[in-house]
Amino acid sequence: MDEIPPTFAGSSIHLEELLQKFAGVKLGLPLLLERGPEEVRAINKVAGSVGIMKIADFKLADIGDVMARSLDTIKRLGFDIVIAHAFVGVKGGLEVLVDRARNLGVRIALVVSMSHEGSREFYDRNLKEFLEVARSLGVWGLVAPATRPHVIKESRRVLGNTFKILSPGVGAQGAEFGSAICAGADYEIVGRYVLRSPDPIGVASEVVELVTRRGRECRTSSV
Amino acid sequence: MDEIPPTFAGSSIHLEELLQKFAGVKLGLPLLLERGPEEVRAINKVAGSVGIMKIADFKLADIGDVMARSLDTIKRLGFDIVIAHAFVGVKGGLEVLVDRARNLGVRIALVVSMSHEGSREFYDRNLKEFLEVARSLGVWGLVAPATRPHVIKESRRVLGNTFKILSPGVGAQGAEFGSAICAGADYEIVGRYVLRSPDPIGVASEVVELVTRRGRECRTSSV
Repeated sequence: MDEIPPTFAGSSIHLEELLQKFAGVKLGLPLLLERGPEEVRAINKVAGSVGIMKIADFKLADIGDVMARSLDTIKRLGFDIVIAHAFVGVKGGLEVLVDRARNLGVRIALVVSMSHEGSREFYDRNLKEFLEVARSLGVWGLVAPATRPHVIKESRRVLGNTFKILSPGVGAQGAEFGSAICAGADYEIVGRYVLRSPDPIGVASEVVELVTRRGRECRTSSV
Repeated sequence: MDEIPPTFAGSSIHLEELLQKFAGVKLGLPLLLERGPEEVRAINKVAGSVGIMKIADFKLADIGDVMARSLDTIKRLGFDIVIAHAFVGVKGGLEVLVDRARNLGVRIALVVSMSHEGSREFYDRNLKEFLEVARSLGVWGLVAPATRPHVIKESRRVLGNTFKILSPGVGAQGAEFGSAICAGADYEIVGRYVLRSPDPIGVASEVVELVTRRGRECRTSSV
């Protein structure tokens, strides 16, 4: 799940009910800017109490020392997974982040392609090398877009089943629910589709059921 | 100036004295995570009162809608310049950010190369195209590293004098003070070298004097 609506952030009982539907919660820069680190920490605390993943989606993309400094605080705010951009490169960049993450017990998910059209302009030219970076750094997972399922398939084919794949792009961004799972992702990231509906908890249940059913169907049919 | 030490953030008189030495203040993700948006806003208020640039260095690198949403809050926190990564591409990415920035009266500085070694692995392969992106979007400025002055020279050569160039990498990261200005940058970004000294205001004065003198010398000698 991506972001949190204000009406939920204010009520930990509602928030708990919403978060229980999902495998994890992903919080990003807009939320941090709007509501600050203490509210981020409070949401992670509720997420921790229902036992789901807490993913920091600040799209880290800086020199190593700066990313490592951010990571120290990210860990203190209760996150256990952190998303960073592959394009910053390894030397003096991702190697420093991954080292610090290992010391702190935080997992890294590396963006290897993005869900918008512009990802083709620069990002996607480097997919093969980004997957090699992910493998050589031994990160926990990848972020790859549901809007271009061939990227997910290629990532899975190259890296096998030891890496988790998180996939944004379903729902409001246009890809069908379940499509990323069918292409080989482990998790689909939903945000606006659920959170901007009048009944987020009801819609969340429907979406999760749909994704689960389609995932089951396509995996059965492909055997 | 990059980041703010806790002892200064707590005292607006000291902070004002420090900020007066510089052309701008650049605040990043570590500070936002550690101290929250209200403290960021307070620092920008002091920077505004001394009339310097207020640069948001969250290294925006997301899909357009998410960057635009961050930008709304960044503007409300008092920033007038925002740093974003060229790497995310234009379509559905930077074009959305630049549109929103124009509406809000915020200027964009585009990262076209980074100061760490890993920037050569992926980022620097695209310099020519990133400069074309900067030109076509009509952004206010670029971020290019003092650690690789040829990148600054090339950026200035290609884009002429209508773009501002901000340059990190002097001081703690190894490049000499004044070297980026001599290569064609408009501003050098200093952080740790000043802020981790026992006397930040004294060191700031020395650094600014040094950069100004060297910049004057090399521009005279190259005429």
